[in-house]
Amino acid sequence: MERMIHTPEGVRDVYNGECAKKQVLKQKLHQVLQSYGYEDIETPSFEYFDVFSREIGTTPSRELYKFFDKEGNTLALRPDFTPSIVRAVSMYFMEEKNPIRLCYSGSTFQNINSYRGRLREATEMGVEFFGDGSAAADAEVLALVVDVLKASGLTEFQVSVGEVEFFKAIVEEAKMSEETVNELRSLISQKNYFGVEELIEEQPMKEELKQIFLRLPQLFGGIEILEEAKSLTSNEKARAAISRLEEIYKILSYYGCEKYISFDLGMLSKYHYYTGIIFQAFTYGTGEAVVKGGRYDHLLQYFGKSSPAIGFALPLENLMNALNRQNIAIEVNEEVSYISYDENNLKEAVQKAQSLRREGKKVKMIREEEA
Amino acid sequence: MERMIHTPEGVRDVYNGECAKKQVLKQKLHQVLQSYGYEDIETPSFEYFDVFSREIGTTPSRELYKFFDKEGNTLALRPDFTPSIVRAVSMYFMEEKNPIRLCYSGSTFQNINSYRGRLREATEMGVEFFGDGSAAADAEVLALVVDVLKASGLTEFQVSVGEVEFFKAIVEEAKMSEETVNELRSLISQKNYFGVEELIEEQPMKEELKQIFLRLPQLFGGIEILEEAKSLTSNEKARAAISRLEEIYKILSYYGCEKYISFDLGMLSKYHYYTGIIFQAFTYGTGEAVVKGGRYDHLLQYFGKSSPAIGFALPLENLMNALNRQNIAIEVNEEVSYISYDENNLKEAVQKAQSLRREGKKVKMIREEEA
Repeated sequence: MERMIHTPEGVRDVYNGECAKKQVLKQKLHQVLQSYGYEDIETPSFEYFDVFSREIGTTPSRELYKFFDKEGNTLALRPDFTPSIVRAVSMYFMEEKNPIRLCYSGSTFQNINSYRGRLREATEMGVEFFGDGSAAADAEVLALVVDVLKASGLTEFQVSVGEVEFFKAIVEEAKMSEETVNELRSLISQKNYFGVEELIEEQPMKEELKQIFLRLPQLFGGIEILEEAKSLTSNEKARAAISRLEEIYKILSYYGCEKYISFDLGMLSKYHYYTGIIFQAFTYGTGEAVVKGGRYDHLLQYFGKSSPAIGFALPLENLMNALNRQNIAIEVNEEVSYISYDENNLKEAVQKAQSLRREGKKVKMIREEEA
Repeated sequence: MERMIHTPEGVRDVYNGECAKKQVLKQKLHQVLQSYGYEDIETPSFEYFDVFSREIGTTPSRELYKFFDKEGNTLALRPDFTPSIVRAVSMYFMEEKNPIRLCYSGSTFQNINSYRGRLREATEMGVEFFGDGSAAADAEVLALVVDVLKASGLTEFQVSVGEVEFFKAIVEEAKMSEETVNELRSLISQKNYFGVEELIEEQPMKEELKQIFLRLPQLFGGIEILEEAKSLTSNEKARAAISRLEEIYKILSYYGCEKYISFDLGMLSKYHYYTGIIFQAFTYGTGEAVVKGGRYDHLLQYFGKSSPAIGFALPLENLMNALNRQNIAIEVNEEVSYISYDENNLKEAVQKAQSLRREGKKVKMIREEEA
C-alpha cells in the first residue's frame, strides 16, 4: 500500500505554480515555431519497435520501454520524436512539392538508470524541416533555435555548430578501420587530447592528416577557426564542409543572430544518421544541452523515401532548470478572485462569479463553514 | 520494412489542419477550466500497476498496457487520469484547508480490441475537485461541463445526471444478492425492460420496491421525474438522493444552465467508486458521451486519505468528431505569408520575414529553384 502512493522511479508530478509556468513557456516557444511557419503534428506515444531500431534511432534497445499489443506486435514508447515524424512524413507528405515544416510537443520515454535526476519521461518540443537541403535551410533552423531560446527569457547562451562531413572526409582519406574511427570519434568528442595523440601516432597516414586529427579537439570557437581548419587541409570534401559553415554564418548575420553562434569541428555525433551540420545549445545552470539537432538527409531512406531533412529537439525540463537557476522568471497570470458564499447568498455569489468569468477572470468559489 | 511505415493498430497521427484545430480547441476549453479556478497538474504517463488496480480503476487489467522498469516493477500506462490525480492529491495536498481544484490534459491508453474506430491512445481533458462534498460543488462541476461544451461551439447537447445512492438505497432495502444486483444494474443501464421484469418477478420483495425497479429504466427526463421518483418510495436514503438532485438543479438555475440538464435515475455505473451524482453529456454525431463524470467520496481511502471528490473527463476525439459531423468549425488562424527568395535577394527576404514575425505573423520562406 505504501509504495502505491509514489510515482515510479525516474518520473514525477508537475503541479502548483510549476505546471502553469510550463504551460506558459510551451505556449511562448510554440508561438515562435509557428511564426517560422512550422505546423503542428502529433504522433502516437508508441510505435512498432522497428521504427526505433538501431539504424534509425539513437536509443539502444535496452533503454526502450517495450510491450505488446493484442495482436502480439512489439511496441515501444518513443524515446524521441524524429523517427516518428519521419515515418509520418514518408506516409503522408511525399507528394508535396513545397518544403514541409513540422513542429511537435510531447513526452519522450527512456528506460535509463536514474542518476543525476535524469527523467525517464521528459517533455520535448522541436521541429523537423523536410525538402530543403540548402545552407539557407540550415541557417533558418539555427536562427529559429536562437529565437526560441530568446523567447524563453534566456539572454546568455551559445549554439555550438559542427559539421560531420568535415570529419568524415578526412577519416575517409586516412583509411582507418571502422573500429578505430569509432574510438577516435569518441576521444575527440570528449576532447581527450592525449588519447587522440596516442591513437593517431600508431596510425599510418600522412603528416597533414595527423596534424588535423591532433588539432581537431581544439577546433572550436568563433568564425576564425573555420579559416584555420581550411588552412589545415587540401581535402576538397573537408573544405566544402567548411565553406558550407561559412555560408550558413553569413546568412545567420542576415537574421542578426550570429553572435549566439560558435563552431566546434570536434563535435561529432555517434549517430550515423547526421549528414551535415549538427548543433547543441548551452547556457548556464545546466550541464545538459537545451537544444540538440542536425541535418539527416538519408534517414527517410529507411522508410523507402528520399528527402533532405534537418531538425532539432528542445528538452523542456533542461530549459526550465536553466531558467530557474538563472533566476529568469516565467510570468504567469496568477490573479484569482475568491468569492465566498453561504446558504443565504449562493444565488448572488454564483451570478457574480459567472459575470467575472465572462470578463476573462479566474474565480474560485469558497463555501463558508457555518459558525 | 513495409509494416514499419504504419502506425500500430488503434492509434493515429494527427496533422495538417486537424492538429491545429485540436490545439485551438484544447486552449479554448482550458481557458474555461481556468476561469473556474482549476489549476494545471501533470502526472506521469505511467504508474505502478497497483494505482490502476481493480478497486481503484475502471479498466480491467487485460486492457492495460503493462511493462517493466529496470528495477523489475510492473508499470502501466494510465487508462484514465483520476487514479493518478487522486494519488498526487494524497501525496501533496492533504494539508491544504481550502478545496483543491485541478485540471489536466493528456493521453490515456487502453489495450482494447479496435472496433468502431475506438482509439487505443486518446486525448482526455478533465477536472477533479477535492474537499467540498456539497450540492453547490456538484452544481459547479455540472455548470463547468455546460460552459466547456458551449465554449467548444456545441449548441445542442444534454447533460444527463443520475444519483447512484438512489439505486443503492432501494437495493439495500430489497436485500438481493450481490450477483443479482450486478445483473439488475446491467439490465437497467441497458434499459432492458423485459429483462428487468423477468428478474424482479423472481425476487422476494415488497410490492413497492418491485414497482420502483420496474419503473427505473424509464425514470429519465426533466425535473418532473424527480417528483415521480419521490412518490414511488418512502425509503429515506432514496428520498435524500432525490432531494440532493433537486437542490443541485436549483443551484444550476443560478448558473442559468438548467436547460442543458436532464435526469436519469436508471443511469448506473458498474464502477463501485461513485458515491453520489454521476453524469454523461451527449450530443448529435457521436454515440459516445462527450463528457463523463461523477462524485467519488471514498476513492482517496485507497491511498490512506479521506476527502470528498468529484470530477469529469472529456474525451477530446469524441467531441471533435461531434463538432465535425455537426459542421461546427473550430476557427484557426491559418494566415501564412510566403516570402520567396533566390541567391540574390536572400538578405532582404530574411529581413522582411523577421520583421513580419516580430509583428506576430506566420512566415514561410520559399527558395526559388534556379531556372
